Amino acid sequence: MSGQTLIEKIIRAHVVEGDCVPGKEVKIRIDQTLCQDATGTMAFLELEAMGVDRVKTELSVQYIDHNTSQFGPENPNDHLYLQSVCAAKGVLYSRPGNGICHQVHLERYGVPGKTLLGSDSHTPTGGGIGMVAMGAGGLDVALAMAGKPFKLSFPRVIGIRLSGALPAWVAAKDVILQVLAILGSKGNVGTAVEYFGPGVKSLSVPERATITNMGAELGVTTSVFPSDENTRAFLVAEGRGDAWQSLTADADAVYDRVIELDLSQLVPMAACPSNPGNVRPVSEIAGLPVSQVLIGSCTNSSLKDLRMAAAVLKGRQVSPAVSLGIAPGSRQVMQMMSLDGSLGDLIGAGCRILESACGPCIGQGFSPASGTISVRTFNRNFLNRTGTKNDQCYLVSPETAVATALTGKLTDPRSLGIAYPSWAMPGQFLVDDSMVLQPAPAGDAVEIVRKETIGEPPCCSPLPDCVEGEVLLRVGDKITTDHIMPAGTYLKYRSNIPRYAQYVFECFNEEGKASFAERAGKVRDAGRIGVVVAGESFGQGSSREHAAICPMHLGVRVVLAISVERILAANLVNFGILPLLFKDASLLETISAGDSFCIENLHAQLKPGADVQARLRRGDGSEQQLSLTHALSAEDIALVLAGGRLAAN
Amino acid sequence: MSGQTLIEKIIRAHVVEGDCVPGKEVKIRIDQTLCQDATGTMAFLELEAMGVDRVKTELSVQYIDHNTSQFGPENPNDHLYLQSVCAAKGVLYSRPGNGICHQVHLERYGVPGKTLLGSDSHTPTGGGIGMVAMGAGGLDVALAMAGKPFKLSFPRVIGIRLSGALPAWVAAKDVILQVLAILGSKGNVGTAVEYFGPGVKSLSVPERATITNMGAELGVTTSVFPSDENTRAFLVAEGRGDAWQSLTADADAVYDRVIELDLSQLVPMAACPSNPGNVRPVSEIAGLPVSQVLIGSCTNSSLKDLRMAAAVLKGRQVSPAVSLGIAPGSRQVMQMMSLDGSLGDLIGAGCRILESACGPCIGQGFSPASGTISVRTFNRNFLNRTGTKNDQCYLVSPETAVATALTGKLTDPRSLGIAYPSWAMPGQFLVDDSMVLQPAPAGDAVEIVRKETIGEPPCCSPLPDCVEGEVLLRVGDKITTDHIMPAGTYLKYRSNIPRYAQYVFECFNEEGKASFAERAGKVRDAGRIGVVVAGESFGQGSSREHAAICPMHLGVRVVLAISVERILAANLVNFGILPLLFKDASLLETISAGDSFCIENLHAQLKPGADVQARLRRGDGSEQQLSLTHALSAEDIALVLAGGRLAAN
Repeated sequence: MSGQTLIEKIIRAHVVEGDCVPGKEVKIRIDQTLCQDATGTMAFLELEAMGVDRVKTELSVQYIDHNTSQFGPENPNDHLYLQSVCAAKGVLYSRPGNGICHQVHLERYGVPGKTLLGSDSHTPTGGGIGMVAMGAGGLDVALAMAGKPFKLSFPRVIGIRLSGALPAWVAAKDVILQVLAILGSKGNVGTAVEYFGPGVKSLSVPERATITNMGAELGVTTSVFPSDENTRAFLVAEGRGDAWQSLTADADAVYDRVIELDLSQLVPMAACPSNPGNVRPVSEIAGLPVSQVLIGSCTNSSLKDLRMAAAVLKGRQVSPAVSLGIAPGSRQVMQMMSLDGSLGDLIGAGCRILESACGPCIGQGFSPASGTISVRTFNRNFLNRTGTKNDQCYLVSPETAVATALTGKLTDPRSLGIAYPSWAMPGQFLVDDSMVLQPAPAGDAVEIVRKETIGEPPCCSPLPDCVEGEVLLRVGDKITTDHIMPAGTYLKYRSNIPRYAQYVFECFNEEGKASFAERAGKVRDAGRIGVVVAGESFGQGSSREHAAICPMHLGVRVVLAISVERILAANLVNFGILPLLFKDASLLETISAGDSFCIENLHAQLKPGADVQARLRRGDGSEQQLSLTHALSAEDIALVLAGGRLAAN
Repeated sequence: MSGQTLIEKIIRAHVVEGDCVPGKEVKIRIDQTLCQDATGTMAFLELEAMGVDRVKTELSVQYIDHNTSQFGPENPNDHLYLQSVCAAKGVLYSRPGNGICHQVHLERYGVPGKTLLGSDSHTPTGGGIGMVAMGAGGLDVALAMAGKPFKLSFPRVIGIRLSGALPAWVAAKDVILQVLAILGSKGNVGTAVEYFGPGVKSLSVPERATITNMGAELGVTTSVFPSDENTRAFLVAEGRGDAWQSLTADADAVYDRVIELDLSQLVPMAACPSNPGNVRPVSEIAGLPVSQVLIGSCTNSSLKDLRMAAAVLKGRQVSPAVSLGIAPGSRQVMQMMSLDGSLGDLIGAGCRILESACGPCIGQGFSPASGTISVRTFNRNFLNRTGTKNDQCYLVSPETAVATALTGKLTDPRSLGIAYPSWAMPGQFLVDDSMVLQPAPAGDAVEIVRKETIGEPPCCSPLPDCVEGEVLLRVGDKITTDHIMPAGTYLKYRSNIPRYAQYVFECFNEEGKASFAERAGKVRDAGRIGVVVAGESFGQGSSREHAAICPMHLGVRVVLAISVERILAANLVNFGILPLLFKDASLLETISAGDSFCIENLHAQLKPGADVQARLRRGDGSEQQLSLTHALSAEDIALVLAGGRLAAN
């Protein structure tokens, strides 16, 4: 038997069922979970619906980082609910202001070799310290909290062999942007990425975490770095040296594919509008006028990133053309910078200091002016995600962001003519967990605070044997969960499904015509099933299970696509929506909204590995037999037919 | 001739027309203007419509402090417009992040003895250093920028004679809350407040500014303190000692009324829901459970206030029941606190640090949870202003706010058992004006950036001689500009009148029934005039001229009230709405929406001091002759009949 990859080792150590063969389904034990508030409220409503008294994991943490703007009572009502339900169920509660879940979890709770399941797609940040950390829908995280194993397709592991060290002004962000340039942002379902090789030791934990974080944009299951002396130094500085262990792949580990990456050859990169995979060297697009620069998000808001920014900006001034906003990733980062004076340096340079939270990365404010360019250190630049229609958002490193803020034009930081600030990991971080509330002792009576904006957990009916459906919408490739369920100003409705469902596919609505929600409601009320037809990589982006729950609420029960991304596929099954795949992708273009879609004898047809025959009747009267496929296991099929996991309970 | 009050002296020194007799109209020269962005965009559109090339004031400053949340492109589009139009017109532009207009203006630009007109109702903050500083509608400020004198009713001056000094834990906020308890929040139109007496010297400039700032809630024209050694110390510490001069009332000055206030006898006070005049001692309501505490706003966000908060919170923890947000009043405050470590103390205690801006005070986020109490150091607690329906908002000093944050219950800070932190004015503030952009030199070509969300300045048609109207709405006393034109999530539409007008009187709309805007639009389209009927102190609160412009856009041309507040009355005239007053207040209750309202021979009837006869026909068919009055001058009448100032131009 050949050597094992690190990912294989960690998964094997957690397997409770299934074979560790790429593409096969395995079930693994989950050691830790994290939730953020935009997905967590629903996850805890589901946990309550399951009748679980206390969570069964080693550690579960609920973070408040998404919905902190509080326009109206919805956000603080969610906070009160989560604070109380966490106290009751044995979950740590990280208060608003304590920082972004992934940054805080890395600092305070992540442990090499453990499994972490998070109701946020950027959970793989934990791979920066050698965890197998994965994003999932809220229901899957709720099940993990309930002690149930997590099911995944055992991944093919792509090895990225790093050599050399990054030159001055080239950053970890440029590494992952380069990887995105190589692997693309679609078509990587079922794979995971593992970094190894002599270049690894040149990267600190915060740098590694930037790389694994934005691995989410590849669409891979997770990304992992070895746990080495740098990992130890980081954990020791966090006062958690005991949590460390050395973890590496076997020397003769076999990867599905190996990509060689010489760090010393990398250059500053940018993901251009409007996809993280649309990567170009900054030097090729330098000079574009920029109106806004933002530094922050779970990808790039570590102490390392922000101290670099402060060192470059100290004594200099942000261009009058640019509004520069900085959101520290955690209270630890902000507090250390407020004590060492570097926050003052940022303020002195003309930065706008935002609360330590996700903020603009999730469309919570700081939209750019119309028709102007925004340059961000974030991880996603999907069209309109900034809150400004037809936005032009570029994703870059903090180094490129700072250079751009100084000049007012997209700028390769190597051209600044400034010495690159040095960085050394602090021997000790400022450790203060006072904004993390401990749960009440088991058995204590805790009143769960349920204000009127907190809805009910979703439920769904079984799928009929004869599906009489109507196509509600046909869309193309790379439709993201932002397209399906917009965040921004609607994010506050996450805990109220009927309210939030009004905005399903809102970006495709046309003024003066019935909205998707209205059309879907009519089809549903007529006793028919709603069908959504899509191209490749349907459901890219975030882990929000609302991209399944809300369409389900509107009566959508079939998704027909060329391919569906991992987390959305699981969420669809969890909520009773049947994900079917084209065998002949060219048929996509022949289908239109309004077409009839029927499946007869569904219960007999739907078997693992078997095709499904459906019939399409187009608006022009033409009929087409569709031979479709799917990737569902027997268990998935039972769930979908029953109407999802909560209905099957 | 008897001695003069300080207010009389300053006004006399600026009079260009009229007699300085209380109640008489005078026109005065304006030395300085300030605008904030929520009113400034319209003010500059109006300035452009007047064809003014460069402002004629000694100093005009445009601040960005209201619309900094940037949900969508509207806010940053406004910023770009304002930045460019200020460069063109000779106006200083204070960038977003530089702080709240009144705090920054006090620190950097206010000059004792000067007149300041601001398009914000809290402009009287400048009275803290001996300015006659007044709020006005944007159009009046635009006219002042154009070099036109400002017209006001020469005020009766109420003298507040201060003696003693504040005890520990009793603050300047408690002084103004006590004054509100005495004078009330309505019925003070036409008066101004002047502080004098031996107690004055015990108050620093930031404390005085808190008191004059919230004088706005009295409804008075302005509030002024003498300029003395404390004023000099403040200006010297700001590097502006040259701006100082000694200014006091004559020893034998005669006030319209004198109120004696012994500072040493004051206690912590709170304005209870939902009016700033609803004041009670904190000790009487102590113990109420509180979910949120906010420290900030132009009333209470000085270095003094925030260093006190940091000193108390250092080494302590905010109650788990409370979310404590702090928004520093200016970049100077935030930068000094980030350099001296006190910002770190706040963060360490569990505070949420918000951008230096108006933020939650103007409904921009940080709404409290439903049915819970929010305690704020702000100046207004009008119902629903927090963004949460039926909110319970208490206004208190920073001292009471901090005590409440520590205990989770409304707390008299004297009961904390903590030593009151000492305070000494710094010998030197950190002076850094780099976030204030200088205008382009006169004559330079500047392109004015006008994105698609920037509308046109409003215009209006002449009033007909025979008014055929319909009552659209009847409301009661103390209707605020927040009731008329909600801020919160609608604030971003300020530069687009047709869009913003959809929300006129939105709080009175009933679900499932036609909105005020829809009803008004129908009446307007039928060629009739809209009439709004109100009780006492109609138009309390902010200076927003949109409370006139948007109703005018919907066809409202008559307001019939028991009394109208000063700024709104001026705004109504400026935009062609006729403000009429009941002679018999008891008739108010007999009028209903849908009643017909007619005035015949308006042009002949409308004379200074003369009554106006109108006819009401009620829904039940009964008719009533109404004998009405008004406070309009000949000039006002000409303006109203012409359709307002821009139409008359």
